Amino acid sequence: MILLFTGNGKGKTTAAFGQAIRGLGQKKSVFIVQFIKSLQKTGEYLFFEEIKKFFPIEIRTLGRGFVGILGDKLDFKVHQKAAQKALKTARQAIKSRKWEIIILDEINVAIYLKLLKVSEVLEILKNIPAEKIVILTGRYAPKSFYKLADLVTEMKEIKHPFKKGEIAKRGLEY
Amino acid sequence: MILLFTGNGKGKTTAAFGQAIRGLGQKKSVFIVQFIKSLQKTGEYLFFEEIKKFFPIEIRTLGRGFVGILGDKLDFKVHQKAAQKALKTARQAIKSRKWEIIILDEINVAIYLKLLKVSEVLEILKNIPAEKIVILTGRYAPKSFYKLADLVTEMKEIKHPFKKGEIAKRGLEY
Repeated sequence: MILLFTGNGKGKTTAAFGQAIRGLGQKKSVFIVQFIKSLQKTGEYLFFEEIKKFFPIEIRTLGRGFVGILGDKLDFKVHQKAAQKALKTARQAIKSRKWEIIILDEINVAIYLKLLKVSEVLEILKNIPAEKIVILTGRYAPKSFYKLADLVTEMKEIKHPFKKGEIAKRGLEY
Repeated sequence: MILLFTGNGKGKTTAAFGQAIRGLGQKKSVFIVQFIKSLQKTGEYLFFEEIKKFFPIEIRTLGRGFVGILGDKLDFKVHQKAAQKALKTARQAIKSRKWEIIILDEINVAIYLKLLKVSEVLEILKNIPAEKIVILTGRYAPKSFYKLADLVTEMKEIKHPFKKGEIAKRGLEY
């Protein structure tokens, strides 16, 4: 089963994490690959790292941060290489019997930014075993993901405080 | 700060829970009141109960289940009384210095079903201290919540497997 959370509003990645903890509560295992985020001091990272002693959860932050904005000085190829590594990790997790819920966080954005080809991602999303749940997040999901996913929710931004000039808040945005 | 997750799509409650774990990772405390759900065998309940030894988290399921559907045999007044108790619990949590993130799960639905008056909920949502985050979830949010909230996302259902006749899945829907 494939779940797709897209759209321009807040709540896509957090909905995937909420799904993760619901799964963990029901004794399912969870593997998370972050395709854009590089930081290991986000709330989610710190939390999942702390509970992995007790629950079957693994989180890998394999992105290299925002691409082309916010002071990004990396060569585009560095971002592409990182995304390829993340995709390889995702492929292995999907194939592995060890993982039942696999979250590919911001993979839609990685495609939109041309770090990944949609065709190579579709290749690994075909033939997901029925008992596994794969969750795709990020704005700008390609149309082919809408078609392939079993469940699609668009998070629509109605109101956002950053529009009023607030800055990203620790524990809220990361 | 007040966050509102509404709309007809999947991801509202899970987005709130994702926010909860992000907060916990950043050392914030989380209090959850469920206004409709009565079950203590949901994935979220089992999970949060298990981690409360290690994190400042409390979850209270104070609803009495679905109202008027799915074999509900309770008198409407029983549901109303339960919602009043849940609201009282929410009020105390918001006032208490102990809790920094307070999730009022499905409170929008409780209002829509006339278990609560919107005015009595607005009363407790006024004057939220700036450092606290209150998250309201559920479809059919009243317009006054849109106005009051700092951040509003509408989860829009594009595609849902239940429409194709699948049944609720453990670890996915609860």
